[in-house]
Amino acid sequence: MQNHSEQNVKLIISYDGADYSGWQIQPGVRTVQGELESALQKIHRKPIILYGAGRTDAGVHAVAQCANFFSTIQTMPPRNFVPALNALLPRDIRVTAAAAVPPQFHARFSATARAYQYRIACGRPLLPHETRYAMSIPFAPSLPLLNSYARLLLGETDCTLFASPSDAIFTRGSGSRFRRIGHAHFFIENGLLVFEIAANAFFRKMVRSIVGTFLHYAQRELPTSAFERILREGKREKAGPTAPPHGLFLWNVFYD
Amino acid sequence: MQNHSEQNVKLIISYDGADYSGWQIQPGVRTVQGELESALQKIHRKPIILYGAGRTDAGVHAVAQCANFFSTIQTMPPRNFVPALNALLPRDIRVTAAAAVPPQFHARFSATARAYQYRIACGRPLLPHETRYAMSIPFAPSLPLLNSYARLLLGETDCTLFASPSDAIFTRGSGSRFRRIGHAHFFIENGLLVFEIAANAFFRKMVRSIVGTFLHYAQRELPTSAFERILREGKREKAGPTAPPHGLFLWNVFYD
Repeated sequence: MQNHSEQNVKLIISYDGADYSGWQIQPGVRTVQGELESALQKIHRKPIILYGAGRTDAGVHAVAQCANFFSTIQTMPPRNFVPALNALLPRDIRVTAAAAVPPQFHARFSATARAYQYRIACGRPLLPHETRYAMSIPFAPSLPLLNSYARLLLGETDCTLFASPSDAIFTRGSGSRFRRIGHAHFFIENGLLVFEIAANAFFRKMVRSIVGTFLHYAQRELPTSAFERILREGKREKAGPTAPPHGLFLWNVFYD
Repeated sequence: MQNHSEQNVKLIISYDGADYSGWQIQPGVRTVQGELESALQKIHRKPIILYGAGRTDAGVHAVAQCANFFSTIQTMPPRNFVPALNALLPRDIRVTAAAAVPPQFHARFSATARAYQYRIACGRPLLPHETRYAMSIPFAPSLPLLNSYARLLLGETDCTLFASPSDAIFTRGSGSRFRRIGHAHFFIENGLLVFEIAANAFFRKMVRSIVGTFLHYAQRELPTSAFERILREGKREKAGPTAPPHGLFLWNVFYD
């Protein structure tokens, strides 16, 4: 709980998720939140809770994850948390910015959108410098076809097809099946096929399910109209295999 | 020495050079050529010499290094060396292609040009997924200014400014000071400043010297005309500090 003597501090965090069991703190395993809270505890000499914008899964990377915490250290300008935390953190987690934010700011609940990127080597194995950061597929799908699938996602879209089977929409019949998708696009960059998507929120493993499903049907050259029917039907068993985590980057988190 | 029972085989090789003491085989240290020759020896049950197109330095990566060797295995189609070698090689070296070539083909002496890329994070520290593959500078140089420097390199260019002090042009006064540079260009890709250069040949550490020198003078906003005088004078002491190896990729090797 914050009080008048506490300062709400927002952090921007980048990490290589390959050697972590995801963002969320869990006993007995190495997590990004765990490493950060451990460093914050060393600085504050007491436990500090860190609120993250997105709970990235094991193996998923972040270019700009966002998180906030309430600091009791009055004497330290918030930007000084950047070098202080980086000195304590392992090299595969870096704090890139820190700033004071209003007390009501919450990294997760104040976020208006998140952007992700997913990287794919097409028709070839991964090169050594790509292995931690991309998936490989043995075929080269049509870029226009993938982008015609991607355009179907734009707007207020029923995303049941890509929802995790453990999601509340299935287990409890609660929660919205819709996500507001503002951007979804494939492009080629640096020899890799890149999928970029931004939405107000995502189901767990949703980006990886979209990528796996798009690739599954693009390999079979399913026409866009037929894919649209599958998307609108929203039968989970029609989704393709979920793409592996190491190709995925949490790219940015947006606030008003 | 090849004879009529030997098949000249060309390999395309990709590697993450971070954990290697460079390409060239040396006793007591881990090198890319050493790992490859060791794998070739296991397949052939005798020592095999591998001829590489470019001797990348310690820490330098390759997307498409080229090399050739003479195989005494008549029964194996050359393309089968790809899975055979990859099964024996560490994960940070991958053979991406193998093909039969004429007996006179030599990966180094037959090459007509090499291309390199160098990656730079400007005005920010490296993100965790970039640390092995880019350098960081604390300022943001002018892209047009860097490209105006780069244009001065095009054509038959006296590259003394960028030659290693241990080069024969200094130590023995022998060898050409000129290199034929066909391409030299800076661009932004995926949040990084990228320098791409192709030439018939390079002095040792020449790309890293070009990058370090360009950044040194671009930071000081030296006008192109003044930089041109420094380039034409070719006084080695006017070069900037050599950029670190891990930002450099041998990108491609060209043959007629």
